[in-house]
Amino acid sequence: MIRVGIIGATGYAGQELVRLLAGHREAEIVWYGSKNQTDREYSRIFQNLFQIADDKCRDEDMAALASIADVIFTATPQGYCASAVTEEILGKAKVIDLSADFRLKDPHVYSQWYGMEHRGSAFLGEAVYGLCEWNRELIRSARLTANPGCYPTCTILAIAPLLKEKLLEPDSIIVDAKSGTSGAGRQASADHLFCEVNENMKAYKVGSHRHTPEIEEQLSRAAGEPIRVTFTPHLAPMNRGILVTAYGKLREGVKEEAVREAYEKYYSSEKFIRLLRTGEYPQTKWVEGSNFADIQFEIDERTGKVIMMGAIDNLVKGAAGQAVQNMNLMFGLEETEGLKAVPMFP
Amino acid sequence: MIRVGIIGATGYAGQELVRLLAGHREAEIVWYGSKNQTDREYSRIFQNLFQIADDKCRDEDMAALASIADVIFTATPQGYCASAVTEEILGKAKVIDLSADFRLKDPHVYSQWYGMEHRGSAFLGEAVYGLCEWNRELIRSARLTANPGCYPTCTILAIAPLLKEKLLEPDSIIVDAKSGTSGAGRQASADHLFCEVNENMKAYKVGSHRHTPEIEEQLSRAAGEPIRVTFTPHLAPMNRGILVTAYGKLREGVKEEAVREAYEKYYSSEKFIRLLRTGEYPQTKWVEGSNFADIQFEIDERTGKVIMMGAIDNLVKGAAGQAVQNMNLMFGLEETEGLKAVPMFP
Amino acid sequence: MIRVGIIGATGYAGQELVRLLAGHREAEIVWYGSKNQTDREYSRIFQNLFQIADDKCRDEDMAALASIADVIFTATPQGYCASAVTEEILGKAKVIDLSADFRLKDPHVYSQWYGMEHRGSAFLGEAVYGLCEWNRELIRSARLTANPGCYPTCTILAIAPLLKEKLLEPDSIIVDAKSGTSGAGRQASADHLFCEVNENMKAYKVGSHRHTPEIEEQLSRAAGEPIRVTFTPHLAPMNRGILVTAYGKLREGVKEEAVREAYEKYYSSEKFIRLLRTGEYPQTKWVEGSNFADIQFEIDERTGKVIMMGAIDNLVKGAAGQAVQNMNLMFGLEETEGLKAVPMFP
Amino acid sequence: MIRVGIIGATGYAGQELVRLLAGHREAEIVWYGSKNQTDREYSRIFQNLFQIADDKCRDEDMAALASIADVIFTATPQGYCASAVTEEILGKAKVIDLSADFRLKDPHVYSQWYGMEHRGSAFLGEAVYGLCEWNRELIRSARLTANPGCYPTCTILAIAPLLKEKLLEPDSIIVDAKSGTSGAGRQASADHLFCEVNENMKAYKVGSHRHTPEIEEQLSRAAGEPIRVTFTPHLAPMNRGILVTAYGKLREGVKEEAVREAYEKYYSSEKFIRLLRTGEYPQTKWVEGSNFADIQFEIDERTGKVIMMGAIDNLVKGAAGQAVQNMNLMFGLEETEGLKAVPMFP
Repeated sequence: MIRVGIIGATGYAGQELVRLLAGHREAEIVWYGSKNQTDREYSRIFQNLFQIADDKCRDEDMAALASIADVIFTATPQGYCASAVTEEILGKAKVIDLSADFRLKDPHVYSQWYGMEHRGSAFLGEAVYGLCEWNRELIRSARLTANPGCYPTCTILAIAPLLKEKLLEPDSIIVDAKSGTSGAGRQASADHLFCEVNENMKAYKVGSHRHTPEIEEQLSRAAGEPIRVTFTPHLAPMNRGILVTAYGKLREGVKEEAVREAYEKYYSSEKFIRLLRTGEYPQTKWVEGSNFADIQFEIDERTGKVIMMGAIDNLVKGAAGQAVQNMNLMFGLEETEGLKAVPMFP
Repeated sequence: MIRVGIIGATGYAGQELVRLLAGHREAEIVWYGSKNQTDREYSRIFQNLFQIADDKCRDEDMAALASIADVIFTATPQGYCASAVTEEILGKAKVIDLSADFRLKDPHVYSQWYGMEHRGSAFLGEAVYGLCEWNRELIRSARLTANPGCYPTCTILAIAPLLKEKLLEPDSIIVDAKSGTSGAGRQASADHLFCEVNENMKAYKVGSHRHTPEIEEQLSRAAGEPIRVTFTPHLAPMNRGILVTAYGKLREGVKEEAVREAYEKYYSSEKFIRLLRTGEYPQTKWVEGSNFADIQFEIDERTGKVIMMGAIDNLVKGAAGQAVQNMNLMFGLEETEGLKAVPMFP
Repeated sequence: MIRVGIIGATGYAGQELVRLLAGHREAEIVWYGSKNQTDREYSRIFQNLFQIADDKCRDEDMAALASIADVIFTATPQGYCASAVTEEILGKAKVIDLSADFRLKDPHVYSQWYGMEHRGSAFLGEAVYGLCEWNRELIRSARLTANPGCYPTCTILAIAPLLKEKLLEPDSIIVDAKSGTSGAGRQASADHLFCEVNENMKAYKVGSHRHTPEIEEQLSRAAGEPIRVTFTPHLAPMNRGILVTAYGKLREGVKEEAVREAYEKYYSSEKFIRLLRTGEYPQTKWVEGSNFADIQFEIDERTGKVIMMGAIDNLVKGAAGQAVQNMNLMFGLEETEGLKAVPMFP
Repeated sequence: MIRVGIIGATGYAGQELVRLLAGHREAEIVWYGSKNQTDREYSRIFQNLFQIADDKCRDEDMAALASIADVIFTATPQGYCASAVTEEILGKAKVIDLSADFRLKDPHVYSQWYGMEHRGSAFLGEAVYGLCEWNRELIRSARLTANPGCYPTCTILAIAPLLKEKLLEPDSIIVDAKSGTSGAGRQASADHLFCEVNENMKAYKVGSHRHTPEIEEQLSRAAGEPIRVTFTPHLAPMNRGILVTAYGKLREGVKEEAVREAYEKYYSSEKFIRLLRTGEYPQTKWVEGSNFADIQFEIDERTGKVIMMGAIDNLVKGAAGQAVQNMNLMFGLEETEGLKAVPMFP
């Protein structure tokens, strides 16, 4: 059994890790780390896990945890993992960081968008960007994996094949994303009270969301040239789910067939990516609770634009599920272990 | 592998059976029966099951199905199963009926509440009421199991121990139940449009809901004397979940300790019933997607009443999950097989 | 024009007062009092009021406010109004208190349920309980009105006629209430985050909610004898609305006709109470945004119980709307002024 | 008093007309026309209007209605108004059509997008597109007004000033719109059941929604050159509200100041358009129930794009409210009469 430690276990992503790992046949959780809830039974905080995860929470001592765990998940605020990880820790345990600390290769870009200095830049070189479908081989041998952000996961999966195949005008990409509210975390905040979110839609951080450079870095890699995107996140009145509607201008002469083939080339054998049938569009509800990313496109012949759509569960493929998928790769397990749940509907 | 046929596979309960059985290691679905969607791929209707259940729907020919299946689930409107089941069918396959046809022993009570004659009364005698925690041994040997209604499941689980132990005044019971909207089924109806249900609460069928005699029959069995209840169902703006708040007058001299012991006597070793810790109340979200029934009580010393609370997922423990639990019992499998999912939160 | 000051203007009830008074032809707000938002433009907090209420917030100096206002609404935490109100203030301005401070006549009951000493008990005698339909004449001449709680308003309106007419067994009353989440206020709290409330139902403060003694005091007045009730509040995943489902045992021989006549006797000429037509039940959506209380009953002949149902908008008839109705009475205005909005559907 | 007849009074837009007109001081409804509910009391269908609109529904005989009404609102399916309107009717009563029949000037474009021949093309010439802020003077003297679609209203208001002022590259416009479910109407349909919409986001009719040519026709008028847009509507889990996030490429050298000035030039004196303060974005909740359109923009310097945002209540400014605004203009009343309601929050 793989011994798992979670730091930041009492946030939504941390809880989702616990939920998923409860059904994983090769892993057991040995440490529920929490800054504020130390010594409280985990299931007192998340009553869904009563009689399933009743251990007491422990602190966030990563070094101590590294001595007893094979893998450490950090579902922590930005800056924690970068400052806590050491060579000694990585020598003992693999680390999968669900924060943004190791997603961007350039520490200056990091400090520019995250407003803090990067305190673990020595490890930026070896850290692998854990988008399994695009980096599988690197992940297999990684000690430190940067689990992608929720918006980037859905966005990159929806767009990258067309950039890789040079089907899009590189400066034409617009990403309009809609997220459920669990993406905002479990911190008490008036903005995320039920009454403020329910029956409401809004854009936020327009032109300035921190996931922008992460999307751009990965899309640039796929395109082989620098890509900039206009990215607008929206808050939707639902718990889970990200829907990305992305727009790009097709290069002169690109036909529907080429677009379809691009998606099939990269995804037709992927277990967690479902290229939908003609006439079907991604809906967040159809992937809820699962690690699937549903993808579809439509071409607007009148304007020469392609509309690229993707839906994921932000807490699963967008966070904890992908983290488990990364763990499976890093430990040589079946990639789908612990991730076979069928999406829950309705 | 147990070969499973589902009649009425395209309703919400039918779909939930498919979702749960997709994770069951001993069962495979061989027949997706549907009255209106014959020959359409199942996953066209429920896109969450794309690449998981892509078989075409078939008709509802129960006799034909009996020849190829080991067990038949009927998730059909009232009257279908009673009129379709035959000795020949039961000789070939076990039947688990999710409709109300075999829940009430007296066909006159059935016709009075359901407004139709009972056309399968010959089988009423052998049919077993499939509330696993109370009828486990009978279910193991049943050919025909009447899967309980959603409201009755939650209500009986919450109240029966206190009646069994003679702790309640028998004529004092009031059941105030709140249900998610999936309980209303998938038929198109203006009353259940998003805009009519969202941001709304209402009682319906006050004093006349068909689950009343079912609750009364089972509570009478537990009490050993006739029990009548006032039952008020409510529609809540959520997809899933039933919350039952039941009220009873404690018999003279009954103390909290006796109430607690009654629950523990019947449920402390039950896998799917969680007696909550002091200070915790059932919440539908804490059981969502799982087969758990969470139960708690509180005594109002000022009035001598006990408030008995239960929460289930109406589509799981209140329908498809309990049906799978019944199948497991009827086929000698581990009772929890296919039902180990952790409740999904948030 | 009546000059209105609001203390506690930045909570949900305070905001609702501003919304309603914006449409009131005889009142103007001169003071938006806020403990934490002093000097911030009011419409920065509640953007719905942009270009409607752009004044800056002021502090909560009730004495200063009394010098420039004709009426002061206190939409403040328990304890504030009791400690702030003085004879001098009441000599200058009328006070309508939306907190619980002056709802209970007995300061010991207050301290028992609210956990604090009553610091304004000198004014308990003159304070009038502002349930307009039952106390209209006293309110007209009041200087200090205790605006009823949201649950009590709906509960008392639904039950009082039957107690007044001696139709119910006095010890039989059970109140099962469901509330929208705005009732919990605007304080940031993890329990009321969107993700914790959405797709969830729960009971809370079972047998111990502070509105219990308020309900009992008023029902006892109506009955002419001491009444105790079992009261269970529930949190529902919606912004607004309270639905009360109350249960009582009819006295021997009481018929439906008598029950109907009791409601008609007290309410048939009331502007804000709608006795629904046979077959129609109260739904919170049908009163949303309005000052209406919709009321209906049903008799369960099988058990001898009457089910009494009421629906209000907790922020209007359950708080700010009733407060404006009280103001109208206290200033001799038309009772419906500023309160004519039709419920918003869907 | 203006005598108002409504054809199609039992849909959501029709009901919203009734709700708004109930608060209009110069209008009274004399005819609640309904195809399916003739002779049923209107408030039996919409219980929020009990004791407010209890008249019985009548049929949809437009000619008969024209004899007793001053103005006829048609909130009917496409094709009805075009086939029903006659010179004789327009000689007696003004007509405000909430359907799409008279929004497009070219009947061939109409038949192409709406799949039916235009049967009232004789009146296309005189029909005025009823977007009040852009066509006010024409509306004042119109006999036949085409009330704009919900998506076009929000989209055009957000984009037109920048096109009018030549600030945008004309071929760069992308419109990503999110709508509440009331936009889908009140027809029973499985797709719009609560359980299918709740906790879900999806795009629909991608590249093919009927509002596309309407948006393009009006934007082309504003731009003085042909404009094509990529338009993607989304269904959001809320009752009301449209949020438009539109994207355009700024022409070389255009600065933020110029963009702001363009909006102010056209809207600073508009009563129903609120140009939000810096740092504030439109949210559908902030306009709910009101006739406001909230507008903001943000420039993404990195990509040279401007993000234009607008929020309206689809049933008010996007349908019935704008229809009343049109009526006010056509009858020389104060433009805001009946439309002064403050947005409801929360």
